[in-house]
Amino acid sequence: MFRHIVLLRWVEEATEDQRAAVVAGLETLPGAIPEIKKYVIGTDAKVNEGNFDLGVVADFESVDDYLVYRDHPVHLKVVADFIKPIAAGRAAVQFPLG
Amino acid sequence: MFRHIVLLRWVEEATEDQRAAVVAGLETLPGAIPEIKKYVIGTDAKVNEGNFDLGVVADFESVDDYLVYRDHPVHLKVVADFIKPIAAGRAAVQFPLG
Repeated sequence: MFRHIVLLRWVEEATEDQRAAVVAGLETLPGAIPEIKKYVIGTDAKVNEGNFDLGVVADFESVDDYLVYRDHPVHLKVVADFIKPIAAGRAAVQFPLG
Repeated sequence: MFRHIVLLRWVEEATEDQRAAVVAGLETLPGAIPEIKKYVIGTDAKVNEGNFDLGVVADFESVDDYLVYRDHPVHLKVVADFIKPIAAGRAAVQFPLG
Protein backbone atom coordinates (compact mmCIF):
# COMPACT_ATOMS: atom_id res chain seq x y z
CA MET A 1 0.00 0.00 0.00
CA PHE A 2 1.04 3.59 -0.62
CA ARG A 3 -0.20 6.57 1.36
CA HIS A 4 -0.65 10.19 0.30
CA ILE A 5 -1.25 12.85 2.95
CA VAL A 6 -2.02 16.47 2.18
CA LEU A 7 -2.78 19.25 4.63
CA LEU A 8 -4.24 22.52 3.39
CA ARG A 9 -4.52 25.95 4.92
CA TRP A 10 -7.12 28.42 3.69
CA VAL A 11 -6.90 32.17 3.33
CA GLU A 12 -8.64 33.95 6.19
CA GLU A 13 -11.29 35.34 3.85
CA ALA A 14 -12.36 31.84 2.73
CA THR A 15 -16.10 31.52 3.37
CA GLU A 16 -17.82 28.54 4.98
CA ASP A 17 -19.39 27.81 1.59
CA GLN A 18 -15.99 27.75 -0.10
CA ARG A 19 -14.55 25.47 2.57
CA ALA A 20 -17.56 23.17 2.33
CA ALA A 21 -17.25 23.08 -1.46
CA VAL A 22 -13.73 21.67 -1.14
CA VAL A 23 -14.93 18.87 1.11
CA ALA A 24 -17.90 18.14 -1.17
CA GLY A 25 -15.62 18.10 -4.20
CA LEU A 26 -13.10 15.78 -2.56
CA GLU A 27 -15.89 13.47 -1.42
CA THR A 28 -16.74 12.76 -5.06
CA LEU A 29 -13.25 11.46 -5.83
CA PRO A 30 -13.43 7.90 -4.46
CA GLY A 31 -16.48 7.33 -6.68
CA ALA A 32 -14.69 8.76 -9.71
CA ILE A 33 -11.21 7.26 -9.28
CA PRO A 34 -11.28 3.52 -8.52
CA GLU A 35 -7.56 3.50 -7.73
CA ILE A 36 -8.44 5.15 -4.39
CA LYS A 37 -8.66 2.34 -1.81
CA LYS A 38 -9.29 4.48 1.27
CA TYR A 39 -9.96 8.20 1.52
CA VAL A 40 -10.27 10.11 4.78
CA ILE A 41 -11.07 13.83 4.77
CA GLY A 42 -10.96 15.78 8.02
CA THR A 43 -11.68 19.38 8.92
CA ASP A 44 -9.42 20.63 11.69
CA ALA A 45 -11.11 20.47 15.09
CA LYS A 46 -9.42 23.69 16.25
CA VAL A 47 -7.88 22.10 19.31
CA ASN A 48 -4.56 23.84 18.59
CA GLU A 49 -3.60 27.29 17.37
CA GLY A 50 -1.67 27.52 14.12
CA ASN A 51 -3.05 24.34 12.60
CA PHE A 52 -3.82 23.82 8.96
CA ASP A 53 -7.53 23.67 8.05
CA LEU A 54 -8.08 20.41 6.17
CA GLY A 55 -6.40 17.02 5.98
CA VAL A 56 -6.71 14.22 3.45
CA VAL A 57 -5.28 10.72 3.90
CA ALA A 58 -5.53 8.66 0.73
CA ASP A 59 -4.38 5.05 0.42
CA PHE A 60 -3.57 3.25 -2.83
CA GLU A 61 -2.36 -0.20 -3.80
CA SER A 62 0.81 1.23 -5.32
CA VAL A 63 2.67 4.39 -6.18
CA ASP A 64 1.40 4.00 -9.75
CA ASP A 65 -2.20 4.07 -8.52
CA TYR A 66 -1.38 7.20 -6.52
CA LEU A 67 -0.04 8.82 -9.69
CA VAL A 68 -3.30 8.00 -11.49
CA TYR A 69 -5.11 9.89 -8.72
CA ARG A 70 -2.63 12.77 -8.65
CA ASP A 71 -3.00 13.40 -12.36
CA HIS A 72 -6.67 12.43 -12.75
CA PRO A 73 -8.70 15.17 -14.48
CA VAL A 74 -11.57 14.90 -11.97
CA HIS A 75 -9.08 15.44 -9.12
CA LEU A 76 -7.35 18.29 -10.94
CA LYS A 77 -10.72 19.96 -11.54
CA VAL A 78 -11.52 19.90 -7.79
CA VAL A 79 -8.08 21.38 -7.12
CA ALA A 80 -8.53 24.11 -9.73
CA ASP A 81 -12.17 24.96 -9.01
CA PHE A 82 -12.32 24.74 -5.21
CA ILE A 83 -8.89 24.37 -3.59
CA LYS A 84 -6.66 26.79 -5.50
CA PRO A 85 -8.98 29.80 -5.06
CA ILE A 86 -8.76 29.66 -1.24
CA ALA A 87 -5.43 27.90 -0.59
CA ALA A 88 -2.88 29.76 1.51
CA GLY A 89 -0.66 26.78 2.28
CA ARG A 90 -0.12 23.15 1.36
CA ALA A 91 1.97 20.40 2.93
CA ALA A 92 2.19 16.87 1.55
CA VAL A 93 4.05 13.59 1.90
CA GLN A 94 3.73 10.18 0.27
CA PHE A 95 5.20 6.98 1.66
CA PRO A 96 4.87 3.20 1.47
CA LEU A 97 2.45 1.90 4.07
CA GLY A 98 3.43 -0.90 6.43
CA MET B 1 -11.78 8.01 17.37
CA PHE B 2 -9.72 11.14 16.98
CA ARG B 3 -6.87 11.59 14.49
CA HIS B 4 -3.76 13.74 14.71
CA ILE B 5 -1.67 14.31 11.58
CA VAL B 6 1.62 16.17 11.56
CA LEU B 7 3.93 16.74 8.61
CA LEU B 8 7.47 17.96 9.19
CA ARG B 9 10.05 19.52 6.92
CA TRP B 10 13.75 19.39 7.80
CA VAL B 11 16.44 21.97 7.24
CA GLU B 12 18.59 21.07 4.25
CA GLU B 13 21.62 20.51 6.47
CA ALA B 14 19.84 17.81 8.51
CA THR B 15 21.97 14.67 8.35
CA GLU B 16 20.69 11.16 7.70
CA ASP B 17 21.54 10.32 11.32
CA GLN B 18 19.46 13.24 12.61
CA ARG B 19 16.51 12.28 10.41
CA ALA B 20 16.78 8.64 11.52
CA ALA B 21 16.94 9.72 15.18
CA VAL B 22 13.55 11.41 14.82
CA VAL B 23 11.99 8.24 13.43
CA ALA B 24 13.63 6.11 16.13
CA GLY B 25 12.44 8.50 18.82
CA LEU B 26 8.89 8.57 17.51
CA GLU B 27 8.85 4.78 17.26
CA THR B 28 9.28 4.56 21.05
CA LEU B 29 6.10 6.56 21.72
CA PRO B 30 3.40 3.89 21.26
CA GLY B 31 5.21 1.79 23.88
CA ALA B 32 5.45 4.75 26.27
CA ILE B 33 2.02 6.31 25.81
CA PRO B 34 -0.83 3.76 25.98
CA GLU B 35 -3.36 6.35 24.82
CA ILE B 36 -1.92 5.92 21.30
CA LYS B 37 -4.17 3.42 19.52
CA LYS B 38 -2.50 3.53 16.10
CA TYR B 39 0.70 5.26 15.03
CA VAL B 40 1.97 5.44 11.46
CA ILE B 41 5.28 7.13 10.67
CA GLY B 42 6.31 7.66 7.06
CA THR B 43 9.38 9.15 5.42
CA ASP B 44 8.53 10.95 2.22
CA ALA B 45 9.14 8.77 -0.85
CA LYS B 46 10.32 11.76 -2.92
CA VAL B 47 7.77 11.19 -5.66
CA ASN B 48 6.99 14.92 -5.77
CA GLU B 49 9.07 18.08 -5.52
CA GLY B 50 8.34 20.43 -2.64
CA ASN B 51 7.05 17.78 -0.26
CA PHE B 52 7.56 17.75 3.47
CA ASP B 53 9.98 15.10 4.79
CA LEU B 54 8.10 13.11 7.44
CA GLY B 55 4.49 12.33 8.23
CA VAL B 56 2.86 10.96 11.38
CA VAL B 57 -0.74 9.75 11.62
CA ALA B 58 -1.77 9.04 15.19
CA ASP B 59 -5.19 7.74 16.23
CA PHE B 60 -6.72 8.02 19.70
CA GLU B 61 -9.98 7.02 21.34
CA SER B 62 -10.81 10.63 22.11
CA VAL B 63 -9.57 14.19 21.98
CA ASP B 64 -8.64 13.84 25.66
CA ASP B 65 -6.36 10.91 24.86
CA TYR B 66 -4.79 12.97 22.09
CA LEU B 67 -4.10 15.74 24.62
CA VAL B 68 -2.38 13.23 26.91
CA TYR B 69 -0.07 12.38 23.98
CA ARG B 70 0.44 15.99 22.95
CA ASP B 71 1.56 17.00 26.42
CA HIS B 72 3.29 13.76 27.45
CA PRO B 73 6.86 14.33 28.68
CA VAL B 74 8.24 11.42 26.62
CA HIS B 75 6.72 12.94 23.49
CA LEU B 76 7.91 16.43 24.36
CA LYS B 77 11.43 15.09 24.91
CA VAL B 78 11.50 13.56 21.41
CA VAL B 79 10.28 16.89 20.02
CA ALA B 80 12.90 18.87 21.95
CA ASP B 81 15.85 16.49 21.46
CA PHE B 82 15.37 15.33 17.87
CA ILE B 83 12.67 17.29 16.01
CA LYS B 84 13.21 20.91 17.01
CA PRO B 85 16.94 20.94 16.14
CA ILE B 86 16.28 20.11 12.46
CA ALA B 87 12.71 21.35 11.89
CA ALA B 88 12.21 23.91 9.13
CA GLY B 89 8.43 23.54 8.86
CA ARG B 90 5.47 21.90 10.55
CA ALA B 91 1.87 21.40 9.46
CA ALA B 92 -0.76 19.70 11.61
CA VAL B 93 -4.46 18.98 11.85
CA GLN B 94 -6.63 17.02 14.27
CA PHE B 95 -10.13 15.82 13.53
CA PRO B 96 -12.74 13.29 14.66
CA LEU B 97 -12.41 10.06 12.72
CA GLY B 98 -15.48 8.66 10.95
